[in-house]
Amino acid sequence: MLEARIKQTLRDVADFPKPGIIFKDITPVLHNPQLCTEITKALAEQVKDLHIDVVAGIESRGFLFGLALAQALQVPFVPIRKVGKLPYKTVQQSYDLEYGSATLEVHEDAFKAGQNVLIHDDLLATGGTVVAASKLVALLGAKVAGYSFLISLDFLNGRERLKDFCTQVFSLAKF
Amino acid sequence: MLEARIKQTLRDVADFPKPGIIFKDITPVLHNPQLCTEITKALAEQVKDLHIDVVAGIESRGFLFGLALAQALQVPFVPIRKVGKLPYKTVQQSYDLEYGSATLEVHEDAFKAGQNVLIHDDLLATGGTVVAASKLVALLGAKVAGYSFLISLDFLNGRERLKDFCTQVFSLAKF
Repeated sequence: MLEARIKQTLRDVADFPKPGIIFKDITPVLHNPQLCTEITKALAEQVKDLHIDVVAGIESRGFLFGLALAQALQVPFVPIRKVGKLPYKTVQQSYDLEYGSATLEVHEDAFKAGQNVLIHDDLLATGGTVVAASKLVALLGAKVAGYSFLISLDFLNGRERLKDFCTQVFSLAKF
Repeated sequence: MLEARIKQTLRDVADFPKPGIIFKDITPVLHNPQLCTEITKALAEQVKDLHIDVVAGIESRGFLFGLALAQALQVPFVPIRKVGKLPYKTVQQSYDLEYGSATLEVHEDAFKAGQNVLIHDDLLATGGTVVAASKLVALLGAKVAGYSFLISLDFLNGRERLKDFCTQVFSLAKF
């Protein structure tokens, strides 16, 4: 089963990025080309009935399977980036971190009004970043038609925070 | 011809990231799924005789076609990241920027001794970042078997700086 194989392949790293956190390291997954192929196929299969027009991937790790997934669906890929990285005119959205805040941005021509956007990232934790990304989609008049993650840490209740935008939340490895 | 189509699709943004620079914005390329498919195929075709064991992509934009290229070649993908992002044990390499310096790192188990590594990034400019990535490959006993870029700004002479590591430098859109 794919979920079991992903879980076996992920590497738990203790105390990263700070004491008490067990980090799910995806680099062993990226090191397995056959598994990556199956992951991309499964990510595409999960959303095949959602009429996705665009896949938006969140910097940086959301760029990895994000583009692969957009290619599998043969739809455009949009990078959602940390502030200051995108060269053209952007819209921005700030969000709170445990200490301080951060800002995401996207090009103002990234989505057309009414488009169905699939937001992709490697991991869903508390959902703060993904909520900010969802607001960027809404700011440009498009709608979030689904969420796609490689991993979700469901004990952190990120799914609950995403419900206001869209209830279609998919992940391949649930913890 | 693919090169002409990539050049027509790229968007020139003046004065980014600072006055006087004309930035090659790849987001219109990412927005064209058919073109992305052809790019991935062409990147793989260019290196098919190099016996590549691993593709290493440089954060962040090197993650996009980097994973796609590794998938096309069916070899492992390794992320080379800015310092502080990788959770496991790493090796590091600093390099000079116009003002100050920056550091790249890679997991210490990313490459095996003797492996042929293809370094991928979206754009070759002066080559500083790519030289640092090459030193990381060497630090782990692997060798750079080729360089793969979507775009190269050849008037900046980055190719010259890479010659000490490997003369196999490929790009799909040369300026």
